[in-house]
Amino acid sequence: MTDRPTTTLCHATPDDVVVHGRSLPRELIGEVSFTAMIYLHLTGREPSKAQVTLLDACLVTLMEHGLTPSAVATRLTYGSAPEAMQGAVAAGLLGVGSVFVGATEGAAALLSRIAAAGDPAAEAEAIVREAREAGARLPGFGHPLHRPQDPRTVALLSVARREGLFGAHAHALAHLERALAAGGRALPANATAAIAAVLLDAGIPHEILRGVSLISRCAGLVGHVREEQLRPAMRALWSAAEAAVPYEPPEEEP
Amino acid sequence: MTDRPTTTLCHATPDDVVVHGRSLPRELIGEVSFTAMIYLHLTGREPSKAQVTLLDACLVTLMEHGLTPSAVATRLTYGSAPEAMQGAVAAGLLGVGSVFVGATEGAAALLSRIAAAGDPAAEAEAIVREAREAGARLPGFGHPLHRPQDPRTVALLSVARREGLFGAHAHALAHLERALAAGGRALPANATAAIAAVLLDAGIPHEILRGVSLISRCAGLVGHVREEQLRPAMRALWSAAEAAVPYEPPEEEP
Amino acid sequence: MTDRPTTTLCHATPDDVVVHGRSLPRELIGEVSFTAMIYLHLTGREPSKAQVTLLDACLVTLMEHGLTPSAVATRLTYGSAPEAMQGAVAAGLLGVGSVFVGATEGAAALLSRIAAAGDPAAEAEAIVREAREAGARLPGFGHPLHRPQDPRTVALLSVARREGLFGAHAHALAHLERALAAGGRALPANATAAIAAVLLDAGIPHEILRGVSLISRCAGLVGHVREEQLRPAMRALWSAAEAAVPYEPPEEEP
Amino acid sequence: MTDRPTTTLCHATPDDVVVHGRSLPRELIGEVSFTAMIYLHLTGREPSKAQVTLLDACLVTLMEHGLTPSAVATRLTYGSAPEAMQGAVAAGLLGVGSVFVGATEGAAALLSRIAAAGDPAAEAEAIVREAREAGARLPGFGHPLHRPQDPRTVALLSVARREGLFGAHAHALAHLERALAAGGRALPANATAAIAAVLLDAGIPHEILRGVSLISRCAGLVGHVREEQLRPAMRALWSAAEAAVPYEPPEEEP
Repeated sequence: MTDRPTTTLCHATPDDVVVHGRSLPRELIGEVSFTAMIYLHLTGREPSKAQVTLLDACLVTLMEHGLTPSAVATRLTYGSAPEAMQGAVAAGLLGVGSVFVGATEGAAALLSRIAAAGDPAAEAEAIVREAREAGARLPGFGHPLHRPQDPRTVALLSVARREGLFGAHAHALAHLERALAAGGRALPANATAAIAAVLLDAGIPHEILRGVSLISRCAGLVGHVREEQLRPAMRALWSAAEAAVPYEPPEEEP
Repeated sequence: MTDRPTTTLCHATPDDVVVHGRSLPRELIGEVSFTAMIYLHLTGREPSKAQVTLLDACLVTLMEHGLTPSAVATRLTYGSAPEAMQGAVAAGLLGVGSVFVGATEGAAALLSRIAAAGDPAAEAEAIVREAREAGARLPGFGHPLHRPQDPRTVALLSVARREGLFGAHAHALAHLERALAAGGRALPANATAAIAAVLLDAGIPHEILRGVSLISRCAGLVGHVREEQLRPAMRALWSAAEAAVPYEPPEEEP
Repeated sequence: MTDRPTTTLCHATPDDVVVHGRSLPRELIGEVSFTAMIYLHLTGREPSKAQVTLLDACLVTLMEHGLTPSAVATRLTYGSAPEAMQGAVAAGLLGVGSVFVGATEGAAALLSRIAAAGDPAAEAEAIVREAREAGARLPGFGHPLHRPQDPRTVALLSVARREGLFGAHAHALAHLERALAAGGRALPANATAAIAAVLLDAGIPHEILRGVSLISRCAGLVGHVREEQLRPAMRALWSAAEAAVPYEPPEEEP
Repeated sequence: MTDRPTTTLCHATPDDVVVHGRSLPRELIGEVSFTAMIYLHLTGREPSKAQVTLLDACLVTLMEHGLTPSAVATRLTYGSAPEAMQGAVAAGLLGVGSVFVGATEGAAALLSRIAAAGDPAAEAEAIVREAREAGARLPGFGHPLHRPQDPRTVALLSVARREGLFGAHAHALAHLERALAAGGRALPANATAAIAAVLLDAGIPHEILRGVSLISRCAGLVGHVREEQLRPAMRALWSAAEAAVPYEPPEEEP
């Protein structure tokens, strides 16, 4: 290790641009998909076809969820500052934080612990027991709307199986579901936990999982900008906000 | 002019921090108000007491407007990522763009043109005539709620008069109001135009007016973060947004 | 047109999530690539295979350019607030503005004008003449490093030809290059103009082109977050900034 | 407590705007300073003159620190997207996170614990002992440049004493300094800890301390935008970043 940091990401010469050691114009443009390029960028490794399919499946799953707080922030901001689309998308991305993607990160930590254990089933049972004793919920299990199963979880795990990448983390997820059911709380894994399992099995490092959400949500938010261009909702969202949180005079301080 | 840019803003030594050529610990902390410091920072000049009062009046005026799109973006983002208050405030600031502060900048351009003219009254009449012929509205005049007058305009101009800083730009504002009334459209100046006049007369450069709005709104948005801590509204805002913009199936492409 | 805006993007039921009228778990996850999903999201139409390939080529081209201002902002922010990866990525995206992606939008306007003209060659000549008379540069032509040709332009246009989508906008680009050369200024199209041509020929609407840059750059910036995790450069970037812009005492006001 | 959240911040009628229960045009504009208004906004209470002076002193202290990562992000972003000043300021604010303002929050937690203890001196000693045993540093003590004392701490505490607001938290700070010295590590409180003490004694709630930094830094960043308008440094900062973090080819994967 030297004092001086370096970058291995990109280098340009008059007749070439090298990204991750590959010639952008000769080896990448027209040769690899955006998703394969993302995989290379986040891991430094070229993905297998199956790894690309799994990453695609996760990016497709996360992209669009309707008028989430994040999408509403983008639309309000675009309507307020249409000169700067980048600001509208950034405003929405700022909501991709602990409340919404924290579950994926929390689930990833549990799945990694189980996958690394000598006896995964016992480790899953221990995790469920610890959570019950602490009165805590397991991140990534249960869903207010999607019952009894989250259809996205079913689809993601089915793709993993089809692609031959149903690995230690997907098995860990199944161990957790079984341990929850055995403990009397049959809470199926929701999409956030399934995405954690699938991305870890595809070789995406744990520390950058939030980044996958950011890329996918960025595309989702650009779609909301497009809809705002075609069918502006900003004024309606503003009025609804004012009506939802009415004014009340402050109490007089004693 | 040299090739190499320099900064004159700040310099630290072991026993001092110098900001704009003044010792922060010996000449500024406890000696000048935040507003005086902002004036120094944006202009490089120490303000008079009257200039500070006018800048204070504008910052106080702009700070808080209730559940604006900007405030809603801050509250949705804080509720989604409470680990990063800076992200919530940044999301709100991203809505301080052309739609809301553009009027201040547009009015400032008109007021500067009138103030620089040999015959300000005639210049104001020419501006009103041009706008009428173009079918355009003058930025900073009229208000959907505050009629027949914007009470903030009255207050701001009264402070300017009291402080002896009712200058060329405030007079230009009066010329514009008269020219509008003479043309049969008595549209009084709203707060955005009054702020432009008062800040320009106080010596704030035209190019940085949006920055004054950003500083003031930043404080306003931190107040919304505080209210969100005490009385969370994020879930209510989210539900209201979903109800305000219902789903409709896309039309089938032919 | 009704008073009430609606959204056609997404709708969830207990056992399904519908995005753009398709079942996410049954028709999209594992079935379409992220890029195809982006195309659907930005246009409301399912892309052809060739259209996906062109959009992929553009997203791959734009993703990574080394330590651009945008990437530096991301790395400085991640090093300052590692609790909020979303803030670091948002900070970088805020630099995806007029200076860097403006050329793509400017080129797109010219290409659309040429493509819509009865005599595209004459229209290109008129544009070059107008620019010369105005002393203006054409957006998207020439490059400080990539001479005599931008290798990315060559690659992008070659993909368009290969996929049978070398359309009116790519032809317009060639008309402009010829008109520039005929006028004695052989400035080849750089990647920003080539991307405009390829995306327009692929059917992406002009108004949302900046959004394609945002999606691609978002992935690039996540890659910089990952490199910052592995090989932190924040302190080195900070020191370099301080050294590059040294302190100079402010001049005394007279 | 009801289900429906309300807001007490602001309410507008045709002839008035009410902020925190006071008439903006009649009781606030021209009557109170921006800093007094900030105090009211963050606490719901009107401040005393001394409380305003202390908040002013902290806002003045935090505003400007030269080319910090945050300021560099603002300048790079403004140079990349000058159409959106709000984006440049937001990019800088996103760096106001745990690494830079975390020390204020960490110190505030310790000071609150000491202030609430029956025997503050003993509590401070316990904190120092715990930190030593854990091999941890106390947040807000010591400074790489300002030795043996941080001149801003001296100034801030002197203002607190002058204004008669040297309260339990400032005393707690002194207890901590003494306990550190008694333990053989004479690390004086730096500005971040002093600001925590002064703001808490002034009555600003612990949970919103980061917000005070955000308001002050926002003004600082607008000053950097202004300097960037007058003396652009973006290109120099970009070049310096590229030189500071040179390219190195990635290692071949085995």
